[in-house]
Amino acid sequence: MCQLLGMNCNTPTDVVFSFTGFAERGGRTDHHADGWGIAFFEGRGLRHFVDHEPACASPVAELIRHYPIKSKNVISHIRKATQGVVALENCHPFVRELWGRYWVFAHNGDLKDFHPRLHAAFQPVGSTDSERAFCWIMQEMAKSHAGVPSVAELTITLRELAARVASHGTFNFMLSNGQALWAHASTHLHYVERKHPFADAQLADEDLHIDFARTTTPDDRVAVVVTAPLTTNEAWTAFAPGELKVFVDGRAV
Amino acid sequence: MCQLLGMNCNTPTDVVFSFTGFAERGGRTDHHADGWGIAFFEGRGLRHFVDHEPACASPVAELIRHYPIKSKNVISHIRKATQGVVALENCHPFVRELWGRYWVFAHNGDLKDFHPRLHAAFQPVGSTDSERAFCWIMQEMAKSHAGVPSVAELTITLRELAARVASHGTFNFMLSNGQALWAHASTHLHYVERKHPFADAQLADEDLHIDFARTTTPDDRVAVVVTAPLTTNEAWTAFAPGELKVFVDGRAV
Repeated sequence: MCQLLGMNCNTPTDVVFSFTGFAERGGRTDHHADGWGIAFFEGRGLRHFVDHEPACASPVAELIRHYPIKSKNVISHIRKATQGVVALENCHPFVRELWGRYWVFAHNGDLKDFHPRLHAAFQPVGSTDSERAFCWIMQEMAKSHAGVPSVAELTITLRELAARVASHGTFNFMLSNGQALWAHASTHLHYVERKHPFADAQLADEDLHIDFARTTTPDDRVAVVVTAPLTTNEAWTAFAPGELKVFVDGRAV
Repeated sequence: MCQLLGMNCNTPTDVVFSFTGFAERGGRTDHHADGWGIAFFEGRGLRHFVDHEPACASPVAELIRHYPIKSKNVISHIRKATQGVVALENCHPFVRELWGRYWVFAHNGDLKDFHPRLHAAFQPVGSTDSERAFCWIMQEMAKSHAGVPSVAELTITLRELAARVASHGTFNFMLSNGQALWAHASTHLHYVERKHPFADAQLADEDLHIDFARTTTPDDRVAVVVTAPLTTNEAWTAFAPGELKVFVDGRAV
């Protein structure tokens, strides 16, 4: 199994604090040492980093921990291989383009007997069940809409598609096109919404805390979604099994 | 106009030496300061870095200069914006997936009145003539072949497609799927093949030289393709106008 981290904000925000705790789980405080990845939207553009070294030891992860890339939509993943060898092409998140937009996807879980017919423009490069599921979702999205649908319309489509994939096993996933963050839980997913008045937060995985009030303005809103809560003193909400939520401008819609 | 750098090798090789000289042109020894990017294949997998800061000042470029990522196929680009604003989505190289392979493309030049009908699965995310040309090439490749063709077959297809785009202006480009490096020149492109016996090389853009004999084995072969020669003491060959060359395992085929 793997771990997922997503962030959705109303103003470009750096993910350094959350990523620092999350990356510790990539080989140090937890055993997800088979690679990692992170994708940051900047408007329509995308920065995408993947590495098959453990996140806790990767020079690229070191860069992310110290270079505050600001983004309104971030998806990160640390991998414990269940299907597919440890290789760069099997590291999440995966990226495809559809309707002139990049789409980023990461998955935690394990799908059994999931071999859908991929007859369209999206084919997996690696050998994971996760990338196969992503390609199928992109294919079905492309069939359901002629262009980028509204967030509400796409949420309806994704709810149907997620349920079909989830019938094959555990399907916790995150998806973003830079406008919203969709998150679906089969088992473990938690979120917190940070907003004014901002408080102090203590990382669960490292002896580090931050006073968000010092780095934010009263209008800022940030939603963080993660496999297991990252901080010990915030109110995290667990997803219900089978629940798909969409986050826009730092809040659950 | 922009500058291009490509490397194709028979064994995974780091691009630190060539990139160090090349990145200096991104704002220091030359005026290509509107962003940059680099993509490294590792097998079927891909590392893709883009930044809209000048390459000579970018923290991500600093990482690349010091972290010897080894690859058999690399494409890099430093940008001087002619069409499209300075934004992350307009930084080359661009990436798309086709036939279960990633394809990486970078362009130097300027295309006039190039608005082909993009009716298939490849749509530009940004606003450059370059990404439009890439999407059209991917579309036409997908129409010409049912799956990944041989290098020789694809070279024939690309020669036809490149000539059609080049009728709209300057179309120096590089393309790779991790198996080969295709390079097409309208105006400026040069290459060198490094092989045994390896010699000393002196960078043109920085006071740095390297003795390749110390870091290579007699079987290594490396081809480097670039807009303007990177070293002052090697025999660079200029492309003829309209020439498309393909490099496999470190040599021009």
